[in-house]
Formats: sequence, C-alpha cells, structure tokens
Amino acid sequence: MHASSVQMKIMKVIKIGGNVIDNPKALEEFIVSFSKIEGPKVLVHGGGKVASKLAKDMGIEVKMVDGRRITDDAMLDVVTMVYAGLVNKKVVAALQANGVNALGLSGADANVLLADKRNHPTIDFGNVGDVKQASGETILKFSEMGLVSVFNAITHDGKGQLLNTNADTIASEVAKGLAKLTDTELVYIFELPGVMKDINDGNSVIETITPEIYADLKNKGIVADGMLPKLDNSFEALSKGVKIVRIASTEYINNQDAKHTSLIL
Amino acid sequence: MHASSVQMKIMKVIKIGGNVIDNPKALEEFIVSFSKIEGPKVLVHGGGKVASKLAKDMGIEVKMVDGRRITDDAMLDVVTMVYAGLVNKKVVAALQANGVNALGLSGADANVLLADKRNHPTIDFGNVGDVKQASGETILKFSEMGLVSVFNAITHDGKGQLLNTNADTIASEVAKGLAKLTDTELVYIFELPGVMKDINDGNSVIETITPEIYADLKNKGIVADGMLPKLDNSFEALSKGVKIVRIASTEYINNQDAKHTSLIL
Repeated sequence: MHASSVQMKIMKVIKIGGNVIDNPKALEEFIVSFSKIEGPKVLVHGGGKVASKLAKDMGIEVKMVDGRRITDDAMLDVVTMVYAGLVNKKVVAALQANGVNALGLSGADANVLLADKRNHPTIDFGNVGDVKQASGETILKFSEMGLVSVFNAITHDGKGQLLNTNADTIASEVAKGLAKLTDTELVYIFELPGVMKDINDGNSVIETITPEIYADLKNKGIVADGMLPKLDNSFEALSKGVKIVRIASTEYINNQDAKHTSLIL
Repeated sequence: MHASSVQMKIMKVIKIGGNVIDNPKALEEFIVSFSKIEGPKVLVHGGGKVASKLAKDMGIEVKMVDGRRITDDAMLDVVTMVYAGLVNKKVVAALQANGVNALGLSGADANVLLADKRNHPTIDFGNVGDVKQASGETILKFSEMGLVSVFNAITHDGKGQLLNTNADTIASEVAKGLAKLTDTELVYIFELPGVMKDINDGNSVIETITPEIYADLKNKGIVADGMLPKLDNSFEALSKGVKIVRIASTEYINNQDAKHTSLIL
C-alpha cells in the first residue's frame, strides 16, 4: 500500500462573504469553482445586503452598534428568512446543478451548532449567539454520505431560540469542530487577494502571517478594522488544531497557485 | 429471539397544515406531541398565511388560479424565505428543544426531492414543481443517524431552479419513496378529526375509506373541494405501497385511540 493511499484528505472549510452573495455573476463563478474542488469540503456563507433590503421593504429598522447588527425579534425573522431560506437554498440548488450534493444547514439542523445568547455587559445585541459547540462528528458523517454541508449564519440555543451569529465565526467554529477529528483547512474568500500591506497595491499581498508578524502588523496599523476579527478568529482556530487558514479571493479557488495570505502558528 | 424484536418499526410520515403553523399554541402542542411519538418519523409542513402576509408587506401581488398560488420569481423568493427559512427553522429549533434531533430539508438539500416544473396546457403556474423522485434511501440514512427529517414545500429541478410544491404532495411523495424500502404510514393532520359525513357533526367521522367507499362519497357529494386532492394523493400513495393513510386532528397524535379516518386499499 502506498503511503498516499492512506493519507487522510484534508477537509476544507470555505467561507464566502456578502460581496460574493450580492453579485449573481460572482456567486455563479464561485460555485463553479467550488464544485471542482476535490476532497471533503464544507461551505459557509454570509448574508449580504438582502437582509437589510428586506427589512427596509418591511419597514423594520436596521439597528447597528459598533458595526454589529442588533437582532431584535423582527430582525431575527428577517435574517432567518434570508440567510437560512433564500440565500442558503439558492446556493444549495446551484451546487446541486453543478454536481455537488449540498445539504443546507442552520445550527439548529441536526443540532450541529449550539450557541449561547450573547450576554454583553453594556450592549443588548438581542438574538445574537456565540457558538459553544460545533459537531464535527455530524459534519463528517454527512461528508461520508457524500454530502457537502452548506452553513448559513443562523444558530440556536437548544431551548427553541434561533440566534444570529457572525458567519466568519461560524466558519472558524466549524473548522475547530472538524479539526478535532481530521486534518482541516479554513479558507476565507473575500474581495481582495489576501491581507494587503497597501490596499491600493495588488502586489502587496502578505503571503504568510505568524502570530509574531500579526502583532507587528497590528502595532504598525497595517491591519485594522474589519480585518482584525477575521484574523483573531483565524489564530484562535489555529490554536485549536486547524492546520492552516487562508485569506484569499475567489481566484484562489480557481488556481491554488494564486497569491494569497496563509496564516500559520 | 421474540418475533416482536425483529419486527420492523413502521416509518411515520406526518404532515401538518397551515392551521397548525399559523397558531403558535397549536404548533407548540403539536410539537410536544410529535416529540413523544416513538419509532422512526418524518415531518412535513405547509406554510400557512405568513407567506401571503410577507408578500403583501413587500408589495408583491398574490396571484391565485383555481385556488392555487401562481409562483412568479418574486413569489418564489417569498415562499423560499418563509417555508424553507422562517417556518422550517422555527419548527426545527422547537423540536430540538423537545429532544428531537430534527434536520430541516428542502427538496434541494441532499437532492432529496427532485421535481419538474409544471407544464400545464392552459395555466402558467410559474415556478411550481411536481415531484418526480423522492429519495427514501437518503431519508432512511438520516433516520439511522437518529435524525428526524422536517420537510418544507420547496423542491428543485436539479438544474438550479427552486420550485414551489404542494405540501400534501410532498408528504405523499416522501411516503411513497420510503414505502419502497420500509413499512410506511402517512398521517395528514388538519383542523377536523377526520373526513366527516357532516362537517357540523363531530361524531360523523368516517372511520374507514376504501376506494369503493371513496367513489360512493364522491358520487353523493359528501367529500368535495379541498378534500379531493388530499384523498386522491392518499389513494395514489396506497397504490404505491404505503401501508395506511390516516386523516386526523392533532388529538390523534396525542392519543392514537382517538377517532380519525383510515384509508386503506
């Protein structure tokens, strides 16, 4: 028996953001590329602008504090409809059309992501959940059935309450749950080719970030704002056994030689 | 070994209608009762009035022909959001809270229900699907994993198009798909205790309907309108191997000695 035939295939957890979801052409291109990835894989998607638009159409006010949506009961219904309904089922149907046997999942489905309602000292985020347990076992069983799990950003507390969770966090929690059982890679796809030294210079992708380099980049103010929680999530995932985290554009899904950022310990 | 220990447990496919979905107290009671049913089971739910209300809030006109909703692209988005998102995830989360490891499924998920877009000689129903294949194998695999499949009324054509399908039909197609592999019972839960001779007389439940009795009831005009497609679906399911179809109220889920209608060949 060759060593390669017993080598475990790495499980890839790929997260796409709102910029892909909001652009039908970008979404279609991504889905075609994702479909061609060999080996076990999982998709996590955010919601894009559809939820805010629907809320507006319904006369529901979108409340934000520190760039985070406050999820009151009316807004929870909206995000459940958009993320777990419209976006998730459109993505699943498109994957099926491309030969991927996709299975859409909220955290409540098969109890795959259990969350606690956020208890913040000063801000009431409403129905927002922080994941406390991701069942890698269940996701692996689905994978062994030939199914590709497609996660939206809705979780639950196990007591009947749905909760809204950040999709980047879902991706890292799913990767951490899987990493306990199998070699796992986490890939964040977004609008840039990676973490950039200069956002206006396409050649300034930082190819490798270690915790030491990350500390330096933060000190120098080169990474800031929205990138910080993504990188914090990433290093936390690495510390819990995820082998590598990549930050890349859809281009990387087409061509794994494309420049991107790799995060390692 | 006792005969009973090798006896196959009957798979129960239970369908609830909009009257249960629309009434939070009725839904909660149903879910508690459903949770207590022993043995393998599947739930199918309709959508209730939420989709029509949301469409109205969004300024989308609800078009009906012959009592059937015409599903244009805007309305497909609405029913996908409500049936596959809001209603399905609320039901799944409530079942999880009652100890049932529920898995919400549209037909696109795991390719479990494949449909053809309806091609009607005179009416363009829009994005309406007629089921051509229900994968009993996949539903049984989920059941063997301890998962209870919870179907909404959204299907797909395998080519990327989501479709709106009558939930009674989903229930009978799921039951037929399962009946090829295991003993299967189909239960339609609605607002009355069963098929009634006199809708105003609670004691007039017809306990057994055979094809001969059904023909007689139709001839005499005792069953008509909305009940006809339900009974037609039921007899078609029986002809394809489903062991028994029951038409009952939630009361029957609590107490299987409660009066209800049984359909047999």
